[in-house]
Amino acid sequence: MIWDNKIATTLQWSSEISNKEQKEKVADKIAERVRDGDVIGVGSGSTSYLALLAISRKVKEQKLSVVAIPTSHEVSLTCSIMGIPTTTLLNARPDWSFDGADEVDPNKGLIKGRGGAMFAEKLVIKSSPENYILVDSSKFVSFLGEKFATPIEVDPRALNLVETELLKLGANEISLRLAKGKDGPIISEAGNLILDARFNKITSDYEKEIKAIPGVIESGLFINYAVEILTT
Amino acid sequence: MIWDNKIATTLQWSSEISNKEQKEKVADKIAERVRDGDVIGVGSGSTSYLALLAISRKVKEQKLSVVAIPTSHEVSLTCSIMGIPTTTLLNARPDWSFDGADEVDPNKGLIKGRGGAMFAEKLVIKSSPENYILVDSSKFVSFLGEKFATPIEVDPRALNLVETELLKLGANEISLRLAKGKDGPIISEAGNLILDARFNKITSDYEKEIKAIPGVIESGLFINYAVEILTT
Repeated sequence: MIWDNKIATTLQWSSEISNKEQKEKVADKIAERVRDGDVIGVGSGSTSYLALLAISRKVKEQKLSVVAIPTSHEVSLTCSIMGIPTTTLLNARPDWSFDGADEVDPNKGLIKGRGGAMFAEKLVIKSSPENYILVDSSKFVSFLGEKFATPIEVDPRALNLVETELLKLGANEISLRLAKGKDGPIISEAGNLILDARFNKITSDYEKEIKAIPGVIESGLFINYAVEILTT
Repeated sequence: MIWDNKIATTLQWSSEISNKEQKEKVADKIAERVRDGDVIGVGSGSTSYLALLAISRKVKEQKLSVVAIPTSHEVSLTCSIMGIPTTTLLNARPDWSFDGADEVDPNKGLIKGRGGAMFAEKLVIKSSPENYILVDSSKFVSFLGEKFATPIEVDPRALNLVETELLKLGANEISLRLAKGKDGPIISEAGNLILDARFNKITSDYEKEIKAIPGVIESGLFINYAVEILTT
């Protein structure tokens, strides 16, 4: 499999994971929660990868049977290599899920989507009764948008319209996320573009207001979801 | 061009347009509005088709220059055959637009999407300062949902989640729109599925509430848009 080598040697999270030690500790906490027969939603990103590694070890040692619902090609391929069977939201509902986040505010509101997978991640988190958000302490902010822009997935035809409407909503900086390894903008796994928008102030209705703009497919704001924050 | 014949002989709106005489009268009203240099958003459906025909006649007679922004393959191909140049929302903003509707309520709220093009139609209507909705008298209802179900465009992966959330929102009947000419469900021009949902009561916040469901790409509810209703 071409992916074995790539995952072992070239994908960013194999060697360049920041705060790796801290992340491994929360990853272990997740592995402890795994029970035989669980259907587990698996978020994308480096912390999720480490958690998946820890789960895969436990599953092999204890000969457990678990099924993963992946949220990106990256997770699907990782599951394939680790021998963890996968399914989809069309076939099963997750018993619980885990994921990372880029920002966590004091009300457990999240900004996600630096990895571009927030659309599938939101489908899984919304479908799952329990969601563990694995973060190291660097992710805590006093308000959403303190450090990161809000990622917004947009149908390519709607780029101008969405930009106009985001400005009306109070965006003061909007950039089209550019790719490396291909010319021009990145393309999401659903075939869309991603804008990163900074707002003067993100209020609790922003998730709904942003999504209400015609042409917006999803945003990286997760406000009032059934999440529990796990940290070291 | 393969499409010449098809449009002339086989596409539904060429021969089987219901209330054709009434629709032709509103179509003529639209043609009267065309001015040289206009960029015009063009909705899909049979009334829009007749309006496009009337516009194309006027444009040729008076040697006007207009550009259309089409909302579906059907409209693009029709423009191509009629010799009307087209552009996209990435290149131009419509000066004004016209479109049809399946239902019109007393507050100029609309249900659209029987033809499956509501995603692109909403992009155009939201981008356009003036929008003429061409309807015959059979489209007026006292409340939205009186006759038609609400079309909802859904990412295929999210089908179960969206169904669950629509039931919570008060849907009492949800069906997956099936195709003719291909097995299984129809696929929208953006690659998604379409659900048709009936609700006990559609309130003014429903457009936003439906769109807020993760996996919903767009709905056929158009509430509080800059529309003017044109009828005979």
